[in-house]
Formats: sequence, structure tokens, C-alpha cells
Amino acid sequence: MNEKLILVTNDDGITSKGIRALIEAAKQFGKVVVVAPDKSQSAMGHAITIHNPLRVHKVDIFDDVEVAYACSGTPVDCVKLALAELLDQKPDLCVSGINHGTNASINVIYSGTMSAAMEAAMEGIPSIGFSLCNFSRSADMSASQKYAIHIIQQVLEHGITPHNLLNVNIPDLPFEAIKGIKICQQGKAHWEEEYYNRLDPMGRRYYWLTGKFVWEDEHKNSDVYALENDYVSIVPVQFDLTDYKGLDFLTQNWINI
Amino acid sequence: MNEKLILVTNDDGITSKGIRALIEAAKQFGKVVVVAPDKSQSAMGHAITIHNPLRVHKVDIFDDVEVAYACSGTPVDCVKLALAELLDQKPDLCVSGINHGTNASINVIYSGTMSAAMEAAMEGIPSIGFSLCNFSRSADMSASQKYAIHIIQQVLEHGITPHNLLNVNIPDLPFEAIKGIKICQQGKAHWEEEYYNRLDPMGRRYYWLTGKFVWEDEHKNSDVYALENDYVSIVPVQFDLTDYKGLDFLTQNWINI
Repeated sequence: MNEKLILVTNDDGITSKGIRALIEAAKQFGKVVVVAPDKSQSAMGHAITIHNPLRVHKVDIFDDVEVAYACSGTPVDCVKLALAELLDQKPDLCVSGINHGTNASINVIYSGTMSAAMEAAMEGIPSIGFSLCNFSRSADMSASQKYAIHIIQQVLEHGITPHNLLNVNIPDLPFEAIKGIKICQQGKAHWEEEYYNRLDPMGRRYYWLTGKFVWEDEHKNSDVYALENDYVSIVPVQFDLTDYKGLDFLTQNWINI
Repeated sequence: MNEKLILVTNDDGITSKGIRALIEAAKQFGKVVVVAPDKSQSAMGHAITIHNPLRVHKVDIFDDVEVAYACSGTPVDCVKLALAELLDQKPDLCVSGINHGTNASINVIYSGTMSAAMEAAMEGIPSIGFSLCNFSRSADMSASQKYAIHIIQQVLEHGITPHNLLNVNIPDLPFEAIKGIKICQQGKAHWEEEYYNRLDPMGRRYYWLTGKFVWEDEHKNSDVYALENDYVSIVPVQFDLTDYKGLDFLTQNWINI
């Protein structure tokens, strides 16, 4: 195998434990460059920075990487900037994460981790987002790291889907307790929002988002089902949001348009 | 028709010309409540605010609306907060926009306008994002407003797709020059990023995103094609990102997973 160039990014920030674990995994397959947010950019979705300039600085906190940059922007900004300005050649692979917290089911929509991977995929680069189902900053990444190595190897040896994008979620279990990998579809779910509705020290009201993840179906092919049953889930993801069945609905039901 | 409750939001901010045009359109169909960002939140995608509290204040800048709130968060925050805290009942319809600038093709991924509408759709509320293909703050919204009225009427009379979500884009033309409406699929395209790579007054480098929209296909069913040919485009949108063809690829090509 020729030496690959692998771009590593995330949304938890360049100092997180998860990106360190993913860098170690990626290094087994080639040269690694890191471009990641200089602070947490969780739940930033596919946001990009257009009203402000971006700042970038090199950091020397990882062993044996080609170069690592901390960027003031969102995860998608990191990927755009890497491809347009910071890298001399197009990466062979982009890996994002390992996220501290699940990106299964509808979370893919809000996820900076997955949006970064999607941005690279939109540029034709095979991309994988990895997420561990544990939000703690000190979460044990060892099982996730082993699965990241295994899945990167699969992609490099056997290829990736035509849309170049996989959403990998790993249950929060020791490696020995994980039963294997399931290829899945995105589970149906939604968040039941709740807000802390409180007064601040000046007596002014503020709202702070919280909520409960509500799983709507128990489809055995869904990522949520796989994770609940101690499997790693892989959902192939695409970025054509067209609702093709909806096309028929509109054509048949709307009149005089 | 019973009087409907319609939630109006956007991503250009509550003082933009576009939301004012959309409020006027929505008022023809029922009671209007407005919850919109207190500043521009363009290109925020599906970002939500989790690390900070949100602030909300009532504004009195519109005639004949039930209530209008400016919110410090993203477009998706506005919808979540409206549904969880600010409204007494679930809206019958959510309209977002009228955006100053196109959200056709791949722009749907980055769009705060469409993400706000998607968030409402995920909660089961029929939702429509409207965008005019003109980025100017002073763009003429009159043709867009007429089409918004027409399309809201279609949705209320004939229903919306099962995923509850439409992406409507309007060419930047006088009403008389627009040829009609096309039901479309999301056009294939990407952005060719370029950055202003400059030094600031302190001699430190900054990057500022710009770029060129590159249309990849000329599929006659695509929204880009419709707009280029002076039609309003409507793309039904869904939020299951599963690449179903990709499922087959992985099952057939990967071994020993």
C-alpha cells in the first residue's frame, strides 16, 4: 500500500482525548495532518464562518504527525481551510472524531464531527466520522480506537460508498464486550427539548438547552438498535437531501402550480 | 379554513427585509408568531447552542402579528425555543426566510434558513424555506412574496410531503418574468473555496472564506436548472441521510467485518 495522506479533524477541539486516539489510529496507515478547532465546536452542524476571518496556528502536541493546526472556526471551516490553503495535496482519507458522545440517528444532523467528514466527502475524499457513546471528556477511547483502525483498514482495502461517507458509532463498552459491527440505516428519533428557564444574577431570564433523546422505532436495521445491542454501527451517509417520494406526492396532489 | 398558527423565522435576522415580506405573506393565512435571530446567522447550518444560555426579547417592529421575539441563538435554536418555551400551542405551519441568497442545490446543507425549517419539520410541522437568488440586503422581495403566498396556499389546501419540508428558491426576476414553478431534485454542485489570505494590521495572518459555486450537472430536473431557466424551484427535502445504495456496497464489498 502506498503511503496515504490522512486528514484528521473533530468537533471537540484539538486538545480532546478523542482526536488523540484517532490520530494514533490514523498513523498506522500513512502520514497524518491535523486541522481541528481550537475549542469545542460541538453541535455546530454544517455551520461555516462567513462574517469573520479565521485564525490558524500550528501546535506541537502530537508525536509523529506531519503537522497539526488549531483553527478558530467550525469543524467544516477546518476542512475547507485544510483543503484550500493548508495542505499541499488532497488527502486520501479524512477521519473525524473520535467524538465524545453519540452521533447515531438524528444526531447526525447536528453533529460537527459528521459535518466535517461530510464536507470532505463532498470534495470526493473518503471520509469517516467516529463517535463514542459517552459524553465524558475522560471517556475510555481504547475500544473505539481499535474499531477505528479496523474500519479505516476496510475502507482502504475494500473501498467506500459512492458518497464517500460513513457514520460510525461505538457503544460505551470495553472492547471484549462489543459484539461486532452492523451495517445500519439512520434510526428514527427526535429530541424532546427542555430548557433551563431561569433568572441570571441581574434578574434577567435565560434559557439553556437540554433535552431527552426519544427513539421512535425499534427497526432492527437501525443504528440505535445496533448500539443498544452492543454492536458498533456503520451508517453510509449521503448529502442529497431530496425526498424522492415527496416528488411524487407534490406532482400528484398539488394542482394549478 | 380554521385560523392557523404560523411560526415565521429566518437566518438573516429579525430586522431583515426578507422576513418582513414573509410575515406579510403568512398573515394572509392565520395568526403569525415570529421567533428569529437578533443578528445575521447565515450559513449556520443545523448548529445549536449548547455551551451558552440563550436570551430572548420581545420586539414591536411588525404590524398585526401575535408576538415577535428576537433570540440570541441560531435559526435552529429559534425553532426549538419557540416550540419548547415561547408558544402555547404547536404551530400549524413554519415558514423560514425569505432568505437573501440562494439555498438551491448543495447550499441546503449550509443554510440556516433551511435548517430552521428542517427542525420544525422534524417535529412534525409542515415547513417551507423560501430563498431569493439575490444576496443584497435591499433585494426586491415582491415576486418572492407572491410565490410564498401561492405556495403556502398549496400546502394548506393540498398538503405537504410526509417529511413535511420544502426548499423553495425564487429567481431574481420581476414577477412577470418568472415562468412558473418546477418540482425539482437537489442539483449536484460544490463550492470551489478560495480564501482571502492576508495580514491584519498587527501583521498576523487571517483567512476569510469566499468561493465559487460550481454546478456539476445539467440535469433538467434539478433546482439549479429550473432557476437558470427562470422558474421557481421546489425541492421536497428529507432528513434521513442514510445512503441506501451505500448499504448494498458495504454488504457486498467489505469482508470480515
